[in-house]
Amino acid sequence: MAPILQLFERKAYPKLVEDAATMRSIPIESLFVDQPDRSTTYSASAAGLTLDFSRQAVTDDILTHLVALATEAQLRDAFAALRQGSTVNATENRPALHTLLRSNSAPEGLPNEYAAVAETRRRMQDWSEHIRSGRHTGFSGQPITDVVNLGIGGSDLGPRLVNDALQVFDGKIDAHFVANVDPAALQDALLGLSPESTLFVVCSKSFGTEETITNARAARSWLLQAGAEASALGAHFLAITTDIQAAADMGIPEDHCLPLWDWVGGRYSLWSAIGLSCAISLGWHTFSELLAGAQQMDEHVEAAVPGQNLAVLMALLEVWNTNFLGADSHVVLPYCEGLGYLPEFLQQLTMESNGKRVDVLGRELKSDSAPMLWGAAGTMGQHSFHQLLHQGTRTFSADFILPLTTHTGMTEQHGRLVANCLAQSRAMTVGRTEQQCIDSLLARGAGEERAQALATHLAIPGNRPHSLITMDALTPRSLGALLALYEHRTYFSSLLWGINAFDQWGVELGKDISGSIYEVMQNTRPSVDLDTVTLKHIAAWRAANDRAKQQD
Amino acid sequence: MAPILQLFERKAYPKLVEDAATMRSIPIESLFVDQPDRSTTYSASAAGLTLDFSRQAVTDDILTHLVALATEAQLRDAFAALRQGSTVNATENRPALHTLLRSNSAPEGLPNEYAAVAETRRRMQDWSEHIRSGRHTGFSGQPITDVVNLGIGGSDLGPRLVNDALQVFDGKIDAHFVANVDPAALQDALLGLSPESTLFVVCSKSFGTEETITNARAARSWLLQAGAEASALGAHFLAITTDIQAAADMGIPEDHCLPLWDWVGGRYSLWSAIGLSCAISLGWHTFSELLAGAQQMDEHVEAAVPGQNLAVLMALLEVWNTNFLGADSHVVLPYCEGLGYLPEFLQQLTMESNGKRVDVLGRELKSDSAPMLWGAAGTMGQHSFHQLLHQGTRTFSADFILPLTTHTGMTEQHGRLVANCLAQSRAMTVGRTEQQCIDSLLARGAGEERAQALATHLAIPGNRPHSLITMDALTPRSLGALLALYEHRTYFSSLLWGINAFDQWGVELGKDISGSIYEVMQNTRPSVDLDTVTLKHIAAWRAANDRAKQQD
Repeated sequence: MAPILQLFERKAYPKLVEDAATMRSIPIESLFVDQPDRSTTYSASAAGLTLDFSRQAVTDDILTHLVALATEAQLRDAFAALRQGSTVNATENRPALHTLLRSNSAPEGLPNEYAAVAETRRRMQDWSEHIRSGRHTGFSGQPITDVVNLGIGGSDLGPRLVNDALQVFDGKIDAHFVANVDPAALQDALLGLSPESTLFVVCSKSFGTEETITNARAARSWLLQAGAEASALGAHFLAITTDIQAAADMGIPEDHCLPLWDWVGGRYSLWSAIGLSCAISLGWHTFSELLAGAQQMDEHVEAAVPGQNLAVLMALLEVWNTNFLGADSHVVLPYCEGLGYLPEFLQQLTMESNGKRVDVLGRELKSDSAPMLWGAAGTMGQHSFHQLLHQGTRTFSADFILPLTTHTGMTEQHGRLVANCLAQSRAMTVGRTEQQCIDSLLARGAGEERAQALATHLAIPGNRPHSLITMDALTPRSLGALLALYEHRTYFSSLLWGINAFDQWGVELGKDISGSIYEVMQNTRPSVDLDTVTLKHIAAWRAANDRAKQQD
Repeated sequence: MAPILQLFERKAYPKLVEDAATMRSIPIESLFVDQPDRSTTYSASAAGLTLDFSRQAVTDDILTHLVALATEAQLRDAFAALRQGSTVNATENRPALHTLLRSNSAPEGLPNEYAAVAETRRRMQDWSEHIRSGRHTGFSGQPITDVVNLGIGGSDLGPRLVNDALQVFDGKIDAHFVANVDPAALQDALLGLSPESTLFVVCSKSFGTEETITNARAARSWLLQAGAEASALGAHFLAITTDIQAAADMGIPEDHCLPLWDWVGGRYSLWSAIGLSCAISLGWHTFSELLAGAQQMDEHVEAAVPGQNLAVLMALLEVWNTNFLGADSHVVLPYCEGLGYLPEFLQQLTMESNGKRVDVLGRELKSDSAPMLWGAAGTMGQHSFHQLLHQGTRTFSADFILPLTTHTGMTEQHGRLVANCLAQSRAMTVGRTEQQCIDSLLARGAGEERAQALATHLAIPGNRPHSLITMDALTPRSLGALLALYEHRTYFSSLLWGINAFDQWGVELGKDISGSIYEVMQNTRPSVDLDTVTLKHIAAWRAANDRAKQQD
């Protein structure tokens, strides 16, 4: 393995600091004067995706220095190490083998892991086909019409995104997703569903995730209240877990349990049995195409040189924008209704992976790690936060994501979506000068004085660095490739920052505290170690519930 | 009106800069040593909401200086001016009278505006009751079962949030929301709906919004294809617009048109006829309770002194965190499934209002305006981006929002949600030291060496400034109050920054460019003025569609 270095310790670092100082006075648009073909030369394609980074604040020199950074960090070797099962998750002493989940052959040294994956895939396919055929029945003999996925975080966001994006591909079983411990979440999802034909897929590696197990218990009650015998409940549950005994304790038979492994992180797990709800709702063919698209991206990322490697380029651009050009946040703008959940999925992928304050060796980071990631499907954001993107004081980078065709058959209307995406990308580059605003106002009949007064309000600086990621269409394959691309970009960024992308120690403390607060609320534990703020709100909670009870 | 000043021009500014320098070395938690009652003293309540800001990085001195800033900026007078119809939107020379929309009496000088609002409210109630009673029928004589709201930005986000939050309150008609011009949005929404019993509410002030009118045309086609006569289509449409002629041209009768006024901004419009879909889906009683809650907040904000005024306090805290303590972004964390759309709604409200780079006078801002706003309903974010909140390198402020009871009847399960919220707030304050991590690891049986090695990875700095906003329950009234509170906070922040919260010039450029790009794509305009990047992607779009056609 390469030595762990923080960004500022890299040889390429000082040059890039100089580059950034220079670029600060050069508008991106002006780079096109000498390089009119930037969108051809600053572009790379693989697995059905094209990355156009011509509107990033980069030049040939800067790219040379960035590629040197990638080479110095040995990203290529690190990717091979990831796929071969090296212990890339140092603090938890584990590999991170999400690439194995979509592989069609056993990497050297991993025959057992591969066999387990292949066997699980075969079982997923069996369950998918069994349920979709109508042969699997609920407690009253009805075939299954609805699947409810119970899971949170990685057991929710990936499947939710995939199901929403691909439901037009043979989605004959409806899938629903319940994550929140707020009982309203499950109640909303069950509204209108028939207990007799509803199947729950409980996704919890430990079978101890508070939200998921609480909801699974509530789902059991719902079935029992509908007249199911306790002994018949097994037919309504599948579980994705390592703890078969805990599942059995809840009446889920062993052959209804599919495994997970500790070498699959939650946010990298949609390719595993965690995808079972999708495999059921969308069919096995669609799910296997999703895996195939991801695998195609894996092959590209392993084989391509840094300057043509989509994941390497995107990681370099992330670090360039974040650590050298000072971007506060990264905005993801999919111009595609089906990718509405992509920003949320990527929030987990990038912010849970790389929202870290120490490097792999435990040393405090001297530069920023992951930026805030946010966004929304276009064109919605245009009527909302794009105001700030165009005219706010904040610095950001962005990815536009654009499928060029539509599955709806409404090509002309879809053309408007494409036009809007290209228009926003152009506006973020060229902006609008005060003089252009004055000319435009005068042309529309405004008086000279008003035109002068309004010009600074209308002017847009432009010069917002961003990439365009296009694909022919949103398909299972292109979606698989897109998600794998962001996975690998996230890993590569972590290597450039010197951090571990595969642990998440920061999420544990809240769980510990939540447990003790709940016990105090239930009067099963003394409140001596709690602070005044928490105690005050527990008292308010108790009083509000007393008032509510009196009103009933 | 008070003079327009930027933040740095305020008398209170230098003191606050000093305060911030001092606070940087004082952990929030340590403030509780001398002030154990902070959560009582740093707390204010109104209209059913309680704001606890004891975990913000403020002291009595700082609050004194912040209140001086509010007084200097004459926030109280400015609020009265807003309600009385002063021209608070200077660049468009208009008032912003969203408070009038929930008022029960005519402010002095606004009898005509009030009469129009009251008349529109009466018509909304009539339509709501008419449709809910089943007396209004579609082309085949069926009563209406589903309402589809066609609108984008302010014509979408507010109604979408309100409907989702309050659907348990007598939601007998299902409401659906379509915003995106992507044809998949409408197609998805119509899946499973019956044309005979579906009503469309077209929300577009100009009746020219590209997305909305394109979707309205597609909705017409859908009805015609289902066998409706063109002459019978009127029964399936209501329009919220100022352009009755344009609506008539689409076959919508005049008495199906409800008005909007140019003194209502899109992002402040859910209280107007833009809320009609909600008034239909939720019933008039629920909608009028929403208005009443907002009005109650209006009264509080007008009457309360700065130090007890929820909106003033929240604006001061926003400016304090953003401009003095350097927060990159603001995170909104509603611990309530029903408030899942709140972050999106607030993105528009705050980032479109205050994402500005010049002050009201057109001078470039010398300090930052609105931060990026993002977030998600808890507990979901805890399994995702909270990693970065606890252990990332970024600076942020946050609002936790917590209804203390649940409408589901599942009080015990809801208690877990409350415990999680309080636990996250506590963790963001107190964090966890390296020594605590070592002790905890040793107690769980880890070896000394491993405990030492892991400690820095587990440690959490805490000290993340945030507020807790609690309410007894999520009801029409508390929701109305909450949304009005954020509206007024947004306005007050704009006054502290010296900017206009009510224009949105930055969203216009994209529209202009999009029109010309679409014409080039349709070959109805020469492409001479387009850049190489746009042209390359238009060519790719054409090629992709050709390939798709050949495959069909």
